[in-house]
Amino acid sequence: MNTAPFAPIIWDRNKLTVLDQTLLPVKEEYVELKTETEVEDAIKRLVIRGAPLIGVGAALGIFVSMRGNPGTDLESFKKRLKTVCALIGASRPTAVNLAWAVERILKTASSAASVSQGLSLIQKEAELIYREDLQMCEQIGIHGAELIDDGDTILTHCNAGGLATSGFGTALSVIFKAHEQGKKIHVYADETRPLLQGARLTTWELMKRGVPCTLICDNMAGFLMKQGKINKIITGADRIALNGDSANKIGTYSLSKLARVHNIPFYIAAPNSTIDFSIAHGDQIPIEERRADEVRHIGIQQTAPLDVPVYNPAFEVTDAEDIHAIITEKAVFRAPYTKNIQEGYDL
Amino acid sequence: MNTAPFAPIIWDRNKLTVLDQTLLPVKEEYVELKTETEVEDAIKRLVIRGAPLIGVGAALGIFVSMRGNPGTDLESFKKRLKTVCALIGASRPTAVNLAWAVERILKTASSAASVSQGLSLIQKEAELIYREDLQMCEQIGIHGAELIDDGDTILTHCNAGGLATSGFGTALSVIFKAHEQGKKIHVYADETRPLLQGARLTTWELMKRGVPCTLICDNMAGFLMKQGKINKIITGADRIALNGDSANKIGTYSLSKLARVHNIPFYIAAPNSTIDFSIAHGDQIPIEERRADEVRHIGIQQTAPLDVPVYNPAFEVTDAEDIHAIITEKAVFRAPYTKNIQEGYDL
Repeated sequence: MNTAPFAPIIWDRNKLTVLDQTLLPVKEEYVELKTETEVEDAIKRLVIRGAPLIGVGAALGIFVSMRGNPGTDLESFKKRLKTVCALIGASRPTAVNLAWAVERILKTASSAASVSQGLSLIQKEAELIYREDLQMCEQIGIHGAELIDDGDTILTHCNAGGLATSGFGTALSVIFKAHEQGKKIHVYADETRPLLQGARLTTWELMKRGVPCTLICDNMAGFLMKQGKINKIITGADRIALNGDSANKIGTYSLSKLARVHNIPFYIAAPNSTIDFSIAHGDQIPIEERRADEVRHIGIQQTAPLDVPVYNPAFEVTDAEDIHAIITEKAVFRAPYTKNIQEGYDL
Repeated sequence: MNTAPFAPIIWDRNKLTVLDQTLLPVKEEYVELKTETEVEDAIKRLVIRGAPLIGVGAALGIFVSMRGNPGTDLESFKKRLKTVCALIGASRPTAVNLAWAVERILKTASSAASVSQGLSLIQKEAELIYREDLQMCEQIGIHGAELIDDGDTILTHCNAGGLATSGFGTALSVIFKAHEQGKKIHVYADETRPLLQGARLTTWELMKRGVPCTLICDNMAGFLMKQGKINKIITGADRIALNGDSANKIGTYSLSKLARVHNIPFYIAAPNSTIDFSIAHGDQIPIEERRADEVRHIGIQQTAPLDVPVYNPAFEVTDAEDIHAIITEKAVFRAPYTKNIQEGYDL
């Protein structure tokens, strides 16, 4: 079924196998996840990462964990499901897709009258989340590609690609679709410190699919803009408030401000599930801070004194006023976002 | 004579010994330089780096190279001096101090009537360049510290510290002087990809001198500004045009634009020798592009596909209009720079 040259997640014969993204681009290694602690660890360590993929991985992960150890009766099944969902649900604080997927699993299982029915309902829902994700990527690509012109040079940050989803990605799906349509485009990829998702993953994906690309360090983006080398910027998002404020990988906010200074359109591409309808403004989005050692090291290479204090916010919020459009599988939304998103989703 | 806890360059008993900055902060290792190819290599590989230190290292380096192999007569001495100066002078294209130091050595030697007089003149001039550099750091510190207030949190980029000079540095000299004056300051240091001079060198120096500091990745600076965590930015420069446009480490331009967006004063601290009076505007400054592998690796750690195309400009030019003041050992210059610099230096 997987005809893509790679798949971040393989759901085959009821086995959950994931590509260990921490080893890319040096090694392509797949690992099977069977228990909730393995799933939690895989999300925490970024073996699987990217908001949509985390949602899919969590849903299928809850299923395999429960199947492996369902409890003895309906009561213990439901008690255990709560524990499993709490553990996996707490593995990354920012990605709204995680809470959303866990919520869907809990809801579907609530009507179960037996352990086997519970398992069956969870499996169905998890597989639905997976299929929806594949369709989501396709639709985002179709909508977003309309914004891309022949000859564009496009900057992207972090990895909002196939590796961040179960399919072709969000921001990268737009790029892949435009490329597929025969538009001649060139992509600049920020390496994205500290975890280098751009260098390790985005360039790897772009090259796998034959899209011309150039890797830069994060601090070079402004200079490229000054030289007129960038005419569009597109990134993913991890959580979007109703007013369009968008949390994404650290560095995105700076890009959005630099884009404004240089009059370059800045786009966000993300699935419906990234929009948090309960949050009116970006300042209500919690920001995950990660370990200091991520900044003091790159892989096994020490890059700073081991005892230097570090500030390591993993995300930040980009202001809606700096976003030219938000591309979802539903539509391309433009400002005013609160009104247009509410209307688009019939709220 | 060296009472500092470290010295990037040691000139003692006519031996030129340098701290190998490529090994910091993991190892403190000193290496003696004896020949022009060793000096060229040390500058190229960033064993010694930072515009002022490159000037001092080149001058003393030319002296030890010539002393080791002065030629047999005045004619061969002068011929060889040209070759040595050309080799060392071409080791880094952007730093104006390098050309300036080489020029001073060539000029002083031109009046030599014998090999031994030539050597003696070169030694005197090289030692003068070294002593002037120590005084320069001190004066920049004194001038710049007037701009720093008690309670400031200051962002810096790359390493414009003692390690970039033979003394206390330029941008960091301002910080060290303010700290010495008892002002309570906190410094955020950008790690400065690709070669991580901020992570490896700046934090190391700040910690050695007891200045409270925090390390961040380059792409976090904008988010810090948004949060109000930065109220001043100060960096060094590698070449300054007469109108104030300043070439500095890649990433500086983005900081200057982000500073403007957030209304944060942005300062440059650099020695007189950095000002290129022959250049009216920044667009006349040549920009060094460095090897792709610097971006595909960090130390021995591979960070990207080995065959991914890379763009790796080492410097970029910050617009004078975004610079609140240029601090030199002469004075604190403000806009309009062309007029004020010309008046300040009696041009």
